[in-house]
Amino acid sequence: MWLPDEALRPLGSRRVLVAVGPDDGPVAQTVVDEVAAATSRFGGVLVTGPVTPEDALACDVVLAIVGSAGQVGTASATQPPPAGYLPRTDSYVPAVQAVVDGLLVLGRGAPMSPGMFGLARHDGRTVVVAGDAAGLLYGLHELVRRGAPALTCPDDVVWDLPVHQVRMLDHWDNTVVHPVMGQVERGYAGGSIFWSDGRVRDDLTRVAQYARLLGSVGINAVGLNNVNVHAAEARLLTDHLDDVARLADVFRPHGIRVYLSVSFASPLTVGGLPTADPLDPGVQDWWASAVRRVYETVPDFGGFVVKADSEGQPGPFAYGRDHADGANLLARALAPFSGTVFWRAFVYDHHQDWRDRSTDRARAAHDHFTPLDGRFDDNVVLQVKYGPMDFQTREPVSPVIAAMPRTRLAVELQVTQEYTGQQQHAVYLGPQWDEILRFPLAEDGRTVGYLAAGLPVGTVHRGDDPVPPAGGLVAVSSVGDDEFWTGHPLAQANLYAFARLAWGEEDPDAVLDEWIGLTLGDDPAVRATVHAVLDDSWRTYERYTAPLGVGFMVRPGHHYGPDVDGYEYTPWGTYHFADRDGIGVDRTRATGTGFTGQYAAPWRDVYESVETCPDELLLFFHHVPYTHVLHSGTTVIQHLYDTHADGYDEVVRMASAWSSIEGRVPQAFFDRVTQRLAEQERSAREWRDQLRSAFFRRSGIADATGRTIY
Amino acid sequence: MWLPDEALRPLGSRRVLVAVGPDDGPVAQTVVDEVAAATSRFGGVLVTGPVTPEDALACDVVLAIVGSAGQVGTASATQPPPAGYLPRTDSYVPAVQAVVDGLLVLGRGAPMSPGMFGLARHDGRTVVVAGDAAGLLYGLHELVRRGAPALTCPDDVVWDLPVHQVRMLDHWDNTVVHPVMGQVERGYAGGSIFWSDGRVRDDLTRVAQYARLLGSVGINAVGLNNVNVHAAEARLLTDHLDDVARLADVFRPHGIRVYLSVSFASPLTVGGLPTADPLDPGVQDWWASAVRRVYETVPDFGGFVVKADSEGQPGPFAYGRDHADGANLLARALAPFSGTVFWRAFVYDHHQDWRDRSTDRARAAHDHFTPLDGRFDDNVVLQVKYGPMDFQTREPVSPVIAAMPRTRLAVELQVTQEYTGQQQHAVYLGPQWDEILRFPLAEDGRTVGYLAAGLPVGTVHRGDDPVPPAGGLVAVSSVGDDEFWTGHPLAQANLYAFARLAWGEEDPDAVLDEWIGLTLGDDPAVRATVHAVLDDSWRTYERYTAPLGVGFMVRPGHHYGPDVDGYEYTPWGTYHFADRDGIGVDRTRATGTGFTGQYAAPWRDVYESVETCPDELLLFFHHVPYTHVLHSGTTVIQHLYDTHADGYDEVVRMASAWSSIEGRVPQAFFDRVTQRLAEQERSAREWRDQLRSAFFRRSGIADATGRTIY
Repeated sequence: MWLPDEALRPLGSRRVLVAVGPDDGPVAQTVVDEVAAATSRFGGVLVTGPVTPEDALACDVVLAIVGSAGQVGTASATQPPPAGYLPRTDSYVPAVQAVVDGLLVLGRGAPMSPGMFGLARHDGRTVVVAGDAAGLLYGLHELVRRGAPALTCPDDVVWDLPVHQVRMLDHWDNTVVHPVMGQVERGYAGGSIFWSDGRVRDDLTRVAQYARLLGSVGINAVGLNNVNVHAAEARLLTDHLDDVARLADVFRPHGIRVYLSVSFASPLTVGGLPTADPLDPGVQDWWASAVRRVYETVPDFGGFVVKADSEGQPGPFAYGRDHADGANLLARALAPFSGTVFWRAFVYDHHQDWRDRSTDRARAAHDHFTPLDGRFDDNVVLQVKYGPMDFQTREPVSPVIAAMPRTRLAVELQVTQEYTGQQQHAVYLGPQWDEILRFPLAEDGRTVGYLAAGLPVGTVHRGDDPVPPAGGLVAVSSVGDDEFWTGHPLAQANLYAFARLAWGEEDPDAVLDEWIGLTLGDDPAVRATVHAVLDDSWRTYERYTAPLGVGFMVRPGHHYGPDVDGYEYTPWGTYHFADRDGIGVDRTRATGTGFTGQYAAPWRDVYESVETCPDELLLFFHHVPYTHVLHSGTTVIQHLYDTHADGYDEVVRMASAWSSIEGRVPQAFFDRVTQRLAEQERSAREWRDQLRSAFFRRSGIADATGRTIY
Repeated sequence: MWLPDEALRPLGSRRVLVAVGPDDGPVAQTVVDEVAAATSRFGGVLVTGPVTPEDALACDVVLAIVGSAGQVGTASATQPPPAGYLPRTDSYVPAVQAVVDGLLVLGRGAPMSPGMFGLARHDGRTVVVAGDAAGLLYGLHELVRRGAPALTCPDDVVWDLPVHQVRMLDHWDNTVVHPVMGQVERGYAGGSIFWSDGRVRDDLTRVAQYARLLGSVGINAVGLNNVNVHAAEARLLTDHLDDVARLADVFRPHGIRVYLSVSFASPLTVGGLPTADPLDPGVQDWWASAVRRVYETVPDFGGFVVKADSEGQPGPFAYGRDHADGANLLARALAPFSGTVFWRAFVYDHHQDWRDRSTDRARAAHDHFTPLDGRFDDNVVLQVKYGPMDFQTREPVSPVIAAMPRTRLAVELQVTQEYTGQQQHAVYLGPQWDEILRFPLAEDGRTVGYLAAGLPVGTVHRGDDPVPPAGGLVAVSSVGDDEFWTGHPLAQANLYAFARLAWGEEDPDAVLDEWIGLTLGDDPAVRATVHAVLDDSWRTYERYTAPLGVGFMVRPGHHYGPDVDGYEYTPWGTYHFADRDGIGVDRTRATGTGFTGQYAAPWRDVYESVETCPDELLLFFHHVPYTHVLHSGTTVIQHLYDTHADGYDEVVRMASAWSSIEGRVPQAFFDRVTQRLAEQERSAREWRDQLRSAFFRRSGIADATGRTIY
């Protein structure tokens, strides 16, 4: 993964002052430890604790937590300095203070919000200041990412702060191996790094490494278990709190709070109550007392993640209550401890009758949740999948995200590549997420990224505005006990990119570039090749799998590989209605399911009309003949033939490009990627040939280019 | 299951002489025990061991093992009688001997071959004689099946003997739960009754019940483990022989020998040798010594069942050897102990490229094995699936069965309902098996049943001919630890029918009638209703699932429920090539894969021509337009529409019929069948609607009857 020892060489070879003390807590101590390890490895010097002015002034780098007004230290006659802060009387202070003051001027006097940091070059010295330990950690890693230039360049200054208050990874890890889903549901990188045989692992070394990696890119929340909560996992909330505490201890030093997925039926199944009705006082008491015990064990516990009334998970519907009742039940138990409920909006009828053309799964979240807008407590975050269906390669963004102005929202992405190649295919998802986050969903032009961050209309992205209390960006993690963490080594880039986009970075290519450098070093050939493999890989994957917004043409159950009608006659609400004449789902208001009506202007009209609907979503919104001519000028069927053939050819080129850098990256890394690219080539060929054959058999229309159809 | 206590009332209420002794072995003892239990329950008397002539003459029923010439007892001045036999000097002997002599005359002096028995009414007494203990057991149960009439009717006589020397059930039981296939591969009735957690169960009570049931219908061989031999099962041959011995001890008293499925790679994987090459002397020694140890532990061990070079199982191909080399390797190790190898002919390429239209899985067994005819040792039985594919609802019979005159053959059927409703659907398979067994496959008109029994051309089915050394009928068992043994209680009838057809019964309706009486008693309403549900159920299932010989339109993996293209683009060789114009596989010599050429006359020509090919196999052998007119006068597409609608309607009628007998059968039995019929109705509706929709979407041709297509 990223952050090999070598990445800390520039910092580690210098004299570094970390101006924190024992009272600054474990995250500050992590900054000290990182610098200590780096300087000890690369010949530099760590200066910390009580220091003389001369020592301080001799430092090349200063990392300091500053006061609320930006002052270095707060000592006065009446107020002693916080432990570890440089005392104001120190002769070194004015120099640092001048830098800090300069930063503050450039930062327009912003108070130091959580996680915020400033990074400056001044007078030949590099200074990182932050208002809290997490900010200092993030500043440290920004320094690491920037490498030697940040320690040598002329004067420069940057302020940075996270756009999303919560930057969360949900692990769909089962504590025991599930007979169908395995240990990690939709996991493609081995077993869980947390759990083994129902309990937390004895050896948490890898968890500590993982926590360090996540902390380095600003992740600050981790869900420890699958949102599908089975009997074994339900006991984490009660009998196995010590397991949760052990993991919390490992994540805490990296600024990460842990969350549990809980079953809404816990009062029944674990508590022995006769009901789990959210309006029942006994149930409320049960949750209050369960939560109290959690906080006694894990004082900085984050809260709950809940999948309720969804795909068989229990929920408030069983008691005639709605999802606001359900979410608020848990929220009120968590409120005294500042805990948060992440309540998933992924609620739909998974026993749909495929014969019923009037029901549209795409409508479900909006139908269920928008009537509840304003009814959720302040510590409820509604967690909405980015699209109305389920993590497809291409979906429109969910209209729910712009439809609940009085509700805190988090947008959920999927780092684990369920429908996007299962970490067998090299698919860099940064561009997909970037498109989603910058999509101007709201009527006033606000983008999904801003909406999820909860920023008010027209807010400038960074800078002096307060970080809003709402929002967050959440993703399902892709990590397992595989030696490369993510199965496909290049899939590490997705984990990295999610964190960086959740922080607020806006350029997925630049983020990928960061990841390459931090992981594989500075070899320009390697950099160029990894870009060649990954830059367009999501669109390449889309070409050979998901034509024009059609999803779910995958093998049922495991979701890998092509199966045109695999989900066509199922209860899952996932149809394309391809017949001998045409394909696609009519979701218009005029003649279809009316889903377009859930969007604000202009999208309700853009999507409604075949004339204005973007090609890439045409079949998501419309059923058209195979001979329909796209904006691109080609017909639907020829587009399908072309993209599947071209997509495969592109995979061949990706594999060929990769083969050119053997010897320039670690051999095991090279070999694993090579093996996965071979599988991707095999699989892409299946996708190409099966879809081309299946649609030729249906349509009877030949490929105008004359390429072979089997 | 069949054989409740009540079934033995007629016998148990009488005075019964069992003329066997301790030296006649455990099967004879089972006859004694059965009579003892019955008489003790129903007020009769068991007479056995040393008896006075008066005692003997007072008996209503006599069961006796007779000598090779039919004499009762063998005592002479120079030769003492075998223990337990009635001594010749006994005044009772002449009366019994007269009956026996009469039987022998009627039986044209046939020597008493294994399992043979005679049953007669004579002078107000009922006599069963057999040449061996197994025959006596079978005669006893024939008496039980016939019930009171056989004990009261005027003089009557019947000789019976099994058509097939080996009547075998293969259990596809894993000793440990397989992560994908579960404990019983293709099992639909719970876990294994043999195995638990890798070892034989402590409590073998249910195994003893099962053995008794199988013995009562003449099953004489049981394979104890899955033909897919995993690591745990491979050790049955070595480390866990004591487990095999415990099961053998339970089966032995019922005339049943046990067999093990073994891995061809055992010398490598278990033996630690560097090769499993069948021509390697070290490998030969390893097998010889492994087999010797088996027989030291289980002296009447039956032999091996082997799936080699098939679906990933190891085999002789890895060493450049053929299947005769492979089978003979094991046969030669078993020969000194009279053991037998059942070597499966289920060998095909399961990594086929669906793009390749020249390869035809249906050809595979014939292509692989017929060149080896004559090369197999005498104690090798080639086990051939009844059809060229894999246990589909409708296939032509396998041409291999008539193509290897110098090889002992067993025909393999499937009692477990893998592709035929998985014991969720009521499907009585007797009529399918009957069609298969009586199919005149050979050029000289011999039927599959005779061929598998190895009888020479023109042999009369029963009577005075010697039972041939070759052949056998084998089936995959359907039994698990479910309370009704087979999941669907009515599926018990299939287990029963297989055994009775393997014995030589020829009328599946009569066999079903036997099963109903033995299981549910004599209520005429029950009898009529079960017939109404089951008699035509196989053809009903065919109607709503498998049109005109098309198979494999099932969900991949578990094989339950419809999926038109589920196996269309897979490596499994299972295609129908349905497009917008037509459907079916061209297997002709003229324009297709040439599979028709594997048949002897007349079938090579009957199947070759669309004009003569039977409707029910049309799409197995030919690709035709949807508008092709069948012999029945309807088009292919209208046939598909009609049969799917009619099949569903028939299921509704079945469920309705069943509901009429509540209160007349045990309630738990009634409830379980009711629940399964509801599932069958749901599933049949899916089959109906999905296939009608899918083929309407493809063909664009409306249902002429105007019924709804969704």
